[in-house]
Amino acid sequence: MDKKELALKKHAQWRGKLSIETKAPITNREELAIAYTPGVAEPCLAIQKDESLAYTYTGKGNTVAVITDGTAVLGLGDIGPAAGMPVMEGKCALFKTFAGIDAVPICVDTKDTEEIIKTVRNISKSFGGINLEDISAPRCFEIERRLIEECDIPVFHDDQHGTAIITCAGLLNAVKLTGRKPGNLKIAISGAGSAGISIAKMILRMGFGDVILCGSKGTIYDGAPYNNPEQQKMAQVTNKDKVIGTLEDAMKGADILIGVSKPGVVTQDMIRSMAEKPIVFVMANPVPEIMPDLAKEAGAAVVGTGRSDFPNQVNNVLAFPGIFRGALDARARRITEEMKEAAARAIASCIPEDKLTADYVLPDAFDPDVVKKVAEAVMKEAEKNA
Amino acid sequence: MDKKELALKKHAQWRGKLSIETKAPITNREELAIAYTPGVAEPCLAIQKDESLAYTYTGKGNTVAVITDGTAVLGLGDIGPAAGMPVMEGKCALFKTFAGIDAVPICVDTKDTEEIIKTVRNISKSFGGINLEDISAPRCFEIERRLIEECDIPVFHDDQHGTAIITCAGLLNAVKLTGRKPGNLKIAISGAGSAGISIAKMILRMGFGDVILCGSKGTIYDGAPYNNPEQQKMAQVTNKDKVIGTLEDAMKGADILIGVSKPGVVTQDMIRSMAEKPIVFVMANPVPEIMPDLAKEAGAAVVGTGRSDFPNQVNNVLAFPGIFRGALDARARRITEEMKEAAARAIASCIPEDKLTADYVLPDAFDPDVVKKVAEAVMKEAEKNA
Repeated sequence: MDKKELALKKHAQWRGKLSIETKAPITNREELAIAYTPGVAEPCLAIQKDESLAYTYTGKGNTVAVITDGTAVLGLGDIGPAAGMPVMEGKCALFKTFAGIDAVPICVDTKDTEEIIKTVRNISKSFGGINLEDISAPRCFEIERRLIEECDIPVFHDDQHGTAIITCAGLLNAVKLTGRKPGNLKIAISGAGSAGISIAKMILRMGFGDVILCGSKGTIYDGAPYNNPEQQKMAQVTNKDKVIGTLEDAMKGADILIGVSKPGVVTQDMIRSMAEKPIVFVMANPVPEIMPDLAKEAGAAVVGTGRSDFPNQVNNVLAFPGIFRGALDARARRITEEMKEAAARAIASCIPEDKLTADYVLPDAFDPDVVKKVAEAVMKEAEKNA
Repeated sequence: MDKKELALKKHAQWRGKLSIETKAPITNREELAIAYTPGVAEPCLAIQKDESLAYTYTGKGNTVAVITDGTAVLGLGDIGPAAGMPVMEGKCALFKTFAGIDAVPICVDTKDTEEIIKTVRNISKSFGGINLEDISAPRCFEIERRLIEECDIPVFHDDQHGTAIITCAGLLNAVKLTGRKPGNLKIAISGAGSAGISIAKMILRMGFGDVILCGSKGTIYDGAPYNNPEQQKMAQVTNKDKVIGTLEDAMKGADILIGVSKPGVVTQDMIRSMAEKPIVFVMANPVPEIMPDLAKEAGAAVVGTGRSDFPNQVNNVLAFPGIFRGALDARARRITEEMKEAAARAIASCIPEDKLTADYVLPDAFDPDVVKKVAEAVMKEAEKNA
């Protein structure tokens, strides 16, 4: 049986990857009278008086909603809310497996930005946090921004921030390993959509150096005729030398290449045009911008991809479980930029300096230390601002 | 420790009565690749092609949302969405305990009827059914009606229908026990709100006899100046003799009294004014319209209440688990009037004729036969119309 068939067969056996169990035994009248009427009136009245007691008397403090509108599911695109559910259930399974968090998969059956915002806000009191998932750009920016404003619980669009956090974690270690120092590095990013922009922002905030974003029409520079509003904003803080041209031009002399674009757009010659011992994270799925062996042959010192069958996998599961675990435990109202940076540094720190190698700049997805360290770092950061 | 303290203490220990577990093991890369990317793409694509496969590849077919706006929680009234959550979690625990259904508690943070409808409709594709709970009248009628129209899954407002179904189940047995035949019975109902009207409708549909509804301002009759629109509609199909007056007038000569109103509004003399061996279901909470011992002393042949410490408890848990179990298993798009009547007859049938006594016209909430029989009856009815 091939892997596709096996996945279908397993999903048909599970009929849903989640089950909702009761922690309150209800086997007789006495137990019923505590978990349900009349006993349940007491926690209700307590929460009515002081809403923060929802964290004591209900599951709010350990529950996250995983919400999609089905418009950008995996690499499959706009497949609709119902078809997005297997991924949302899978994400919820990861929340439980990696961080012990109760996660509820919800698909929203509208593509209208305002209606999505209203719907999610209206149900947000049921949860301690909201993980937005697989919502297409540029709507995802507005949806996340508004929900962060309008909800009093953390809202996090993993597709935007997860990859950025883990890429930066890998860069921290790769920069160290190749004898560089963050500060004046040159970073080329292939892909100027939501992932590329999100990574660029984090790279700038963490002070690695200057970034040149490069979309399908060319480098993003101040005043480029093809810039969309988000790209024009980025043009003002990136590409200081105003490099106008293609990805080839952006990569010349660069220390780091980040790829979140399309399979095969990077050649060996382009790698050879980079600085000595360049760092290459090529995360196009399922086929990277350049295959790792070719990149190495052309001189790349460290190569990361999005795939589990190569070293240094940029896997979101390294970040979101610990981030939400920390944010929930701290009862943070927001997941701040500082918390994201703390998460990146915590992920990088999971590999002791003497264990760092070109094939090991990111920890394994199943390393049990990761979620602990990320959660602690996020919590510590959250408490600074509390 | 008194019971209120115990309920608080237990709720604080549980910190939420539910936990969401994963049925898909994710302990290594191979398992991750089946439950999540890349394997999960296969069920997504299958559902995109044929949405009904959501019942095969996701938990939809065994998942119900329990949704409130917090406006009519227990007898506590409008305590708000967050404070309603302990009850919703409790209801979800009952769904699992009694029917094996995965139920998700959701509170909606708006009282606007249109916004509630939109919000619930927008998330409805995530579930196989929707149980509305503790939404105040008259908004609950419109909300349920519209959601039934706009969703392609069963929507059921338990506060309206649950009590009606179980009351009618009890009446079936009580009528038999007292040597009556349904058809020309006289039924007085104290309380002309959503519960009273819902019970009246079901009594009429099942052909027990003529009903007189009586609200706080008097009997409901065609043209009564205090009728609200819902009551005026009922006035046209009830109270054939146009009895104008109080509950006292409504009860004179009645075979059956149903109370869904206020503690203490029924006297022994009023019971004495009824027909021989009257049937009395007095369900005001926590204190019934008349206490069972007083009703019996005044001649009542069968007495039921809403309380677990008296015989013949009208307990919603007798109906909703089996109704949803049957509706989900039949993949019914609606919970029809016929399915509700089938549920009432199934509940009544759980007590064999030779076991019927005045104190045993309704089965025990923990009788394991109930959910099975109700589910089978509902499924059979659903398949008739499929």
